[in-house]
Amino acid sequence: MTEKFMSMRNLKFLLYEVFDAVSLTRHPYYAEYDRKMLDMVLQAAEELAQGILWPHYREMDRKPPELVDDAVKVHPSVKKVLKEMGEGGWIAMTVPEDLDGQQLPHMIADSCRFIFCAANYSGAAYSGLSDGAARLIENFGGKGLYDAFVPHMRSGRWQGTMALTEPEAGSSLSDITTTAEPTENGYYRIQGQKIFISAGDHDGVENVVHLMLARVRGAPPGVKGISLFVVPKKRISEKGALVPNDVVTSGIFHKLGYRGCPIAQLSMGDKNDCRGYLVGEPHNGLRYMFQMMNEARIGVGMGAAAMATAAYYASLDYAAVRKQGRKIEEKNPSNPPVPIIEHADVKRMLLFQRSVVEGALSLLLQCSQYVDMKKVGSHEEKEKYSLLLDLLTPVAKSYPSEAGILSISQGLQCLGGSGYCDDYPLEQYYRDARIHPIHEGTTGIHGMDLLGRKIPMNNGKAFATYLEEVETVIREAKGMSALEPYALKLSESLEKLKRVTFHLAGILKERGIEHALADATLYLELFGIITVAWQWLIQAIVIVNALKGGLPEAEENFYQGKFYTFRYFFGYELPKTEGLINRLMHTDGMTVQMNKEWFKD
Amino acid sequence: MTEKFMSMRNLKFLLYEVFDAVSLTRHPYYAEYDRKMLDMVLQAAEELAQGILWPHYREMDRKPPELVDDAVKVHPSVKKVLKEMGEGGWIAMTVPEDLDGQQLPHMIADSCRFIFCAANYSGAAYSGLSDGAARLIENFGGKGLYDAFVPHMRSGRWQGTMALTEPEAGSSLSDITTTAEPTENGYYRIQGQKIFISAGDHDGVENVVHLMLARVRGAPPGVKGISLFVVPKKRISEKGALVPNDVVTSGIFHKLGYRGCPIAQLSMGDKNDCRGYLVGEPHNGLRYMFQMMNEARIGVGMGAAAMATAAYYASLDYAAVRKQGRKIEEKNPSNPPVPIIEHADVKRMLLFQRSVVEGALSLLLQCSQYVDMKKVGSHEEKEKYSLLLDLLTPVAKSYPSEAGILSISQGLQCLGGSGYCDDYPLEQYYRDARIHPIHEGTTGIHGMDLLGRKIPMNNGKAFATYLEEVETVIREAKGMSALEPYALKLSESLEKLKRVTFHLAGILKERGIEHALADATLYLELFGIITVAWQWLIQAIVIVNALKGGLPEAEENFYQGKFYTFRYFFGYELPKTEGLINRLMHTDGMTVQMNKEWFKD
Repeated sequence: MTEKFMSMRNLKFLLYEVFDAVSLTRHPYYAEYDRKMLDMVLQAAEELAQGILWPHYREMDRKPPELVDDAVKVHPSVKKVLKEMGEGGWIAMTVPEDLDGQQLPHMIADSCRFIFCAANYSGAAYSGLSDGAARLIENFGGKGLYDAFVPHMRSGRWQGTMALTEPEAGSSLSDITTTAEPTENGYYRIQGQKIFISAGDHDGVENVVHLMLARVRGAPPGVKGISLFVVPKKRISEKGALVPNDVVTSGIFHKLGYRGCPIAQLSMGDKNDCRGYLVGEPHNGLRYMFQMMNEARIGVGMGAAAMATAAYYASLDYAAVRKQGRKIEEKNPSNPPVPIIEHADVKRMLLFQRSVVEGALSLLLQCSQYVDMKKVGSHEEKEKYSLLLDLLTPVAKSYPSEAGILSISQGLQCLGGSGYCDDYPLEQYYRDARIHPIHEGTTGIHGMDLLGRKIPMNNGKAFATYLEEVETVIREAKGMSALEPYALKLSESLEKLKRVTFHLAGILKERGIEHALADATLYLELFGIITVAWQWLIQAIVIVNALKGGLPEAEENFYQGKFYTFRYFFGYELPKTEGLINRLMHTDGMTVQMNKEWFKD
Repeated sequence: MTEKFMSMRNLKFLLYEVFDAVSLTRHPYYAEYDRKMLDMVLQAAEELAQGILWPHYREMDRKPPELVDDAVKVHPSVKKVLKEMGEGGWIAMTVPEDLDGQQLPHMIADSCRFIFCAANYSGAAYSGLSDGAARLIENFGGKGLYDAFVPHMRSGRWQGTMALTEPEAGSSLSDITTTAEPTENGYYRIQGQKIFISAGDHDGVENVVHLMLARVRGAPPGVKGISLFVVPKKRISEKGALVPNDVVTSGIFHKLGYRGCPIAQLSMGDKNDCRGYLVGEPHNGLRYMFQMMNEARIGVGMGAAAMATAAYYASLDYAAVRKQGRKIEEKNPSNPPVPIIEHADVKRMLLFQRSVVEGALSLLLQCSQYVDMKKVGSHEEKEKYSLLLDLLTPVAKSYPSEAGILSISQGLQCLGGSGYCDDYPLEQYYRDARIHPIHEGTTGIHGMDLLGRKIPMNNGKAFATYLEEVETVIREAKGMSALEPYALKLSESLEKLKRVTFHLAGILKERGIEHALADATLYLELFGIITVAWQWLIQAIVIVNALKGGLPEAEENFYQGKFYTFRYFFGYELPKTEGLINRLMHTDGMTVQMNKEWFKD
């Protein structure tokens, strides 16, 4: 296995040269940090990843969790990872100092998560879930719940989860049936089933704390009757001991990949003794949960970009050493073969991967910057970046997920037959990555979220703000001779995106929402490519300026590589919008009209 | 697991209504057959698939081959399958009657293989490999080799393989180093290593017969010094007994999928006692092998289409029964949920799959028809169909392989989280199918074959013949009002394909072959989409005519479904050519110029 799973050089390029993360430290909230300290955090994250995550990536897949009796046994490294993550403050990176957190900028915290996920996605999932679950309690749960649960979760001794999905309620959360019966003692009695709960139970921790959606008995149907509860696997008795809380792990799922992390089926209240603690107000559960879900969605995007990054380096490593064939003009079979990285088609496959992973990471850090600015910016900035973040969340989740699969597939292809065999890690990345377009909302759901909810929200204000942001970059790039043709290309694509959007708004009026949203998934794909092209143009401005100076050889190589990758994206990826635009402009309702009987043959 | 893995209705539609397979029986060579007999053959194939292949599809994956000492143990069903395949004449479907074969039209034989592969690709691989290997001996090996090996292979008692790849010679066959030392006794002493040999060794047969490429000592370097040998695992002693032939299985590969069939590493001549028997003339091995490889390439395309077909039916089955969410206009959460097949986005995913699998199958049967016409047609027909077959082989191999992966991925997506779990077969199809763009020549190799070899061959005659074929269909469709707009679309795309081809021919002249072929993989993708669109237009002519008559309900459903699938392909898939054309018309040599040092960071 290659030693490289991500590029610190590229990460720092994005953080400091493109997005000027250091400028965040001018805000009082982040004033304790400076560039040097941020670098130290990144370095520590890389060392942690190298030390306890990366070495177990393959083995956690080969020795997946097992359900023994009703306990889930996971790889022994999980306990160690959670312990070190907890002790090092990695489960409280963005938590305020006065709550014993690191108060790190989100840009840096998300970069650390990127590093962890590139090293070992399953291994990094545990702490990420605890982090999100703890923040939900912190934000909406009140002091009692906070004190009882959060410190344990952030120390890595207890696991946090988000428990939403049920056998009959996956994409349709409004159909959840888990019930919560109020009692006179303040807690609720929980009864129901949950499935697909990541890290839903395991022996790497002393307790598992589920942030669970349920209906208070008598609540209205649909999403307006859903409340949020803390439902621990073991509750704290009056004497302070941990006692079973009638949460039974009734099964774990055997998955294509992502095998280092168990996905559990849970049964609550079989003995009518499962206690849940209401978070915030009743019937507001989905609103609270959406805070965590939105973060988790960006987190999935980050994980997908990270995994595709590691796969890219694995394929690059192979391509650089594997000798096969000769340059195509070479006619003499007695001359020695060349490393396959010399073949144009292999370079194309490598550039494709690099353009996806570095473009996706750029978009994700852009979103992290929005999160930071939402937190520390002026009133106007808060509003602006909040809108942009809402709009881009489905894109930042879905583009890396969908393009990441294709990227990893091309990585596997670089290895030929070896890519298909488990002597190399590509086959595992290929399996692992397939989860991303599914969990935290399928791509189809995000398409509808973007086109049906985010584009029209606030009278289209988020979309208008987005267009302004992209146009600002286009204007700047137009002023640089090396970038003008690319700026014009993106400008054209953006105009077409507007046209498509207005066209679909017209369809909504004329033919209703089912017709307007029928191709929402394709709209999301279109939006994703244009958004990543924008991110590449932002990067290209920095790249072109850097290349003007005399650079040491390694730096020259880095920026030249970046520039070609940028060119690749505009030359090979951006044109894919044309077919999508063609399709979206020719709305004919055929998928709406297609009768389900016609699938019979 | 659903009971349906393919559609006999659609297969017969293609065979009889579209390609008029019965007309082949007017040729004396196939005169023994009529429609009824062909139907009986198809039915028997389906029953065999149902009986001995389909039931073991999942289990053969879960209990993959093991190397115990130096013998490979495979699933017990393999022996049974080969025995029944042999006894039923399924390993000699297209073999002449006077060689104890079935003398079936290739269209029917390939249809049977399609059925077998849809039921269980790994399970069907064994007999397919024996079939091809036996035919190589039959065609080029002479009576002695024929009598010694072929009857055993066709009876299913012995396994045939094609043994080409070596550790240092995968895509670059010219680098194979396995040597053959002539002896005075007529045989050669073989020494070397082979890897990735499908069914290269197993305990389901008494012997394994490798059709192996090697160099006679002193042969010229490169492809011109490669000879073909029969190298059995056990040779026949003078007393007629089977004795070891110094072929050792030194390993088997652990693969992402396709696990029902072992892929072996073989070591020949460790004791200097491995005998090989020359097939035909020395140094002509690659030419002979290409006969088998071309058939194998079409076979891979067929297998890929078959697997994607089975995955489509598995996802359709799920979509029809899984209830989730409501129609999008439905505001009342108390109304019951609907099967997900009612959602436009799910219908889109199903139509995508169907358009790929039925389009690919059409192309493959079109190629089978060419094989038949090459065999029984007039002199002019032989030349014409031979050219078309040569041209379309890389397309018929690669389109189903590449689009099949995407199709299966969408099938998996239809199931959401369940698609990622092994309670359903989609995750296995997803793993299994990833082999197709790799084996029998990677997609990159086929891109270069199409653009660098097939397009220019005979002064572009094959390409010109292809254009005529497509244009003939366009003309016919233009005359039908329901199809005119589609015919015009395909006509436009075809014009653009011509333009791209001439443009690349210009690049070849101006800038050389490396530049001209740099994006050959994209050219192949473009060619594939247009070719499958042509196949859909051929089908649409039949469909539209059928829909004119009053049809019973089931037939009406079938043809309406076909018509919408045709519309889907033209509405959603054909536009993808636009981005490809844009890219291919803007040759800038960037992947050629990309310096490998620039990948460092």
